[in-house]
Amino acid sequence: MNLTKYFQKSELIPAIIQEAQTGEVLMLAYMNEQSLSKTLESGYTWFWSRSRSELWNKGATSGNTQEVVEIYADCDYDTLLIKVKQKGAACHTGEKNCFFNKLGESNE
Amino acid sequence: MNLTKYFQKSELIPAIIQEAQTGEVLMLAYMNEQSLSKTLESGYTWFWSRSRSELWNKGATSGNTQEVVEIYADCDYDTLLIKVKQKGAACHTGEKNCFFNKLGESNE
Repeated sequence: MNLTKYFQKSELIPAIIQEAQTGEVLMLAYMNEQSLSKTLESGYTWFWSRSRSELWNKGATSGNTQEVVEIYADCDYDTLLIKVKQKGAACHTGEKNCFFNKLGESNE
Repeated sequence: MNLTKYFQKSELIPAIIQEAQTGEVLMLAYMNEQSLSKTLESGYTWFWSRSRSELWNKGATSGNTQEVVEIYADCDYDTLLIKVKQKGAACHTGEKNCFFNKLGESNE
């Protein structure tokens, strides 16, 4: 599969990770062409870590892997939506998903 | 509300737009501090258009507005998840959501 069209605007494409069964949005991470290629080959998510500048196989350390169910690109090919089977917590904090800071609450 | 912590890494933060009632992921767009501020003030989504370099009130032209239900920031404050009531189609193509290009199908 030719993946170059997903990387026309940038070397990194944001990938929204959604739990296939529940529709819960778990996290957002970035893929370069190599990580998208490894995701498609392996059936598990691989990302590019911007802070560590390295490929990152989600769950390789924690065991909290993401098995790919379906991948969609958006209308202009600059965002991915990846539906997954999440094992354990998606967030490194131990929360199920990363979106737990509600705006407008007293601590925000 | 002090919004600077959402713009530490970049002047733009990606905002995942999810339909509150169904959990359907509709689109991803970018906000700068001013558009997030206008979103919070008005209760409707405002974005920053990277291609047109201008603030953009979603649905102002098409009528397909997004009423904000809840906004969450992720664990490291570099992504937003905005749950909305979507009026009409979210995608400029007329599709309900922007994620209709399935990877691995013959045309991709």
